Amino acid sequence: MGDAAVIAAIDVGGTKIAGGLVGRDGTLHHRVERPTRARATDPAEVFLTVAEVVADLAADPRWARVDRVGVGSAGPVDIGKGTVSPVNISAWRGFPLVAEVRALPQVAGAPVALGGDAVAMTAAEHWRGAARGFANALCLVVSTGVGAGLVLDGKVYPGPTGNAGHLGHITVDLEGEPCPCGSRGCLERVASGTAIAAWAVGQGWRPAGDEGSASAAAVAESARAGDRVALAAFDRAARALAAGIAATATLVELDVAVLGGGVLRAGELLLAPLRRHLHSYATLPFTRHLTVRAAELGTDAGLIGAAALALD
Amino acid sequence: MGDAAVIAAIDVGGTKIAGGLVGRDGTLHHRVERPTRARATDPAEVFLTVAEVVADLAADPRWARVDRVGVGSAGPVDIGKGTVSPVNISAWRGFPLVAEVRALPQVAGAPVALGGDAVAMTAAEHWRGAARGFANALCLVVSTGVGAGLVLDGKVYPGPTGNAGHLGHITVDLEGEPCPCGSRGCLERVASGTAIAAWAVGQGWRPAGDEGSASAAAVAESARAGDRVALAAFDRAARALAAGIAATATLVELDVAVLGGGVLRAGELLLAPLRRHLHSYATLPFTRHLTVRAAELGTDAGLIGAAALALD
Repeated sequence: MGDAAVIAAIDVGGTKIAGGLVGRDGTLHHRVERPTRARATDPAEVFLTVAEVVADLAADPRWARVDRVGVGSAGPVDIGKGTVSPVNISAWRGFPLVAEVRALPQVAGAPVALGGDAVAMTAAEHWRGAARGFANALCLVVSTGVGAGLVLDGKVYPGPTGNAGHLGHITVDLEGEPCPCGSRGCLERVASGTAIAAWAVGQGWRPAGDEGSASAAAVAESARAGDRVALAAFDRAARALAAGIAATATLVELDVAVLGGGVLRAGELLLAPLRRHLHSYATLPFTRHLTVRAAELGTDAGLIGAAALALD
Repeated sequence: MGDAAVIAAIDVGGTKIAGGLVGRDGTLHHRVERPTRARATDPAEVFLTVAEVVADLAADPRWARVDRVGVGSAGPVDIGKGTVSPVNISAWRGFPLVAEVRALPQVAGAPVALGGDAVAMTAAEHWRGAARGFANALCLVVSTGVGAGLVLDGKVYPGPTGNAGHLGHITVDLEGEPCPCGSRGCLERVASGTAIAAWAVGQGWRPAGDEGSASAAAVAESARAGDRVALAAFDRAARALAAGIAATATLVELDVAVLGGGVLRAGELLLAPLRRHLHSYATLPFTRHLTVRAAELGTDAGLIGAAALALD
């Protein structure tokens, strides 16, 4: 890293809070991680883990070269206000994360940037991963839910509150199932890992072995073995994702869709039907060049992306 | 208009080609119009009407103060290449409209800006109409089709080829009817004026009087008289529009949706159920403040918007 300035990155999730030191070239040099006190009722107790992660990072001699901090957080977030209200951290509702991080003694008032976790993943893939070099991109995290972020005209587009790209909650089926978000027919209700497994179970599929859990990974395993219901479960999710990606391309024009998240461990089981269905849904001339790629940065995307947000 | 510079505006549609002189404040001062030679097979013959419209405008003494030209055209367009391929003008496929306008003797090489007609309408409503003062807006034209344009972060967002905001062709029903665009379940197949009338007829509705035509206007007339099928036809269109507007707000964050076009002559017959359905589909916290407004500029929006595009 030479003597160049370093970015401190923090990635707040419902399960763990990670920290890292990221070079100006987007290389993650040091990573620490602690479990989130997600069940705490006191907002300050949850924040204690962030403070500990920052203290862990500050123990590294490279901390002396930190000139800014980037924070990615489970959403919703409000980047205008600098607050977060992660669905899975119930003690934080409108929690002033930016102000609290900036007030930490090690941060000492340095600039702190905030973004949602899917927007951070998007920033990372655009900076160093599969979306690099594309001016207009949608980057998706397909996991227990479906999150996404946008790159428009060469730059990450967070939207005024930092929530742009919430692809999981667009309606792809007008008369579809109600969603916990209050709407209905949301993409996430068809295409998330949770939805893939639930639909397969509903069609009579059961995980292999006595102790198998009904997860998207187990459905993928059955699909690889040729199970027709399991294959259909991935096809159905791929079709909904294709419709959602096509809708986004139709609304803002896209060059690439990058897919990451746990469900993408299924690889071509999801990507092959996705490309096929995209051919059916993305039909307008200006959407046809859209390509689909697997994400490249894996679990480091959150930290690298948080750092990228601090550079914007 | 004093001595200030003037913008020449051209609005190319499948039925007519209009021209206007627009002041720097967005006021339309002079308007001319000629029928489109839409059935011509020679691209140059179609362009002749554009040349005539420009000649008509140039006869006005204010033409001497024209320093730039804005052109709005039926789409698809490609603003990067300066070409247009209007669906309803079959002789023009990849027609170099910008270069041809710039080469007209009266234009004499002045800068020529191009945009799609829905993007032009959006620019007009953002400059002088119902979207004025909003940083993030979707402006819709609900007519024989459904077109739209986006304002993001305070500026019209045309997308790289000028086709962003193609709301009519996002899928709102994964397993819906095939659309001529090649996709299926497109919003336009449910919410356009054509679709409203076709659905009502399919449900047994007939226009009042012997000579009534099965148009959205006739369905609106029946709805005002309390006809249940006619009311249901507008409710169904309003629901699909609500899902599409909510999807856009979920993807890019919106403050306002502005609706214009012939179907909006139905007024609250469409807007009241639209607001109600939007409450059901736009449920995420960052989408709830979204308001719905009727467009303000009517048929002048195309020319005022073409002028706005020339100023950007």
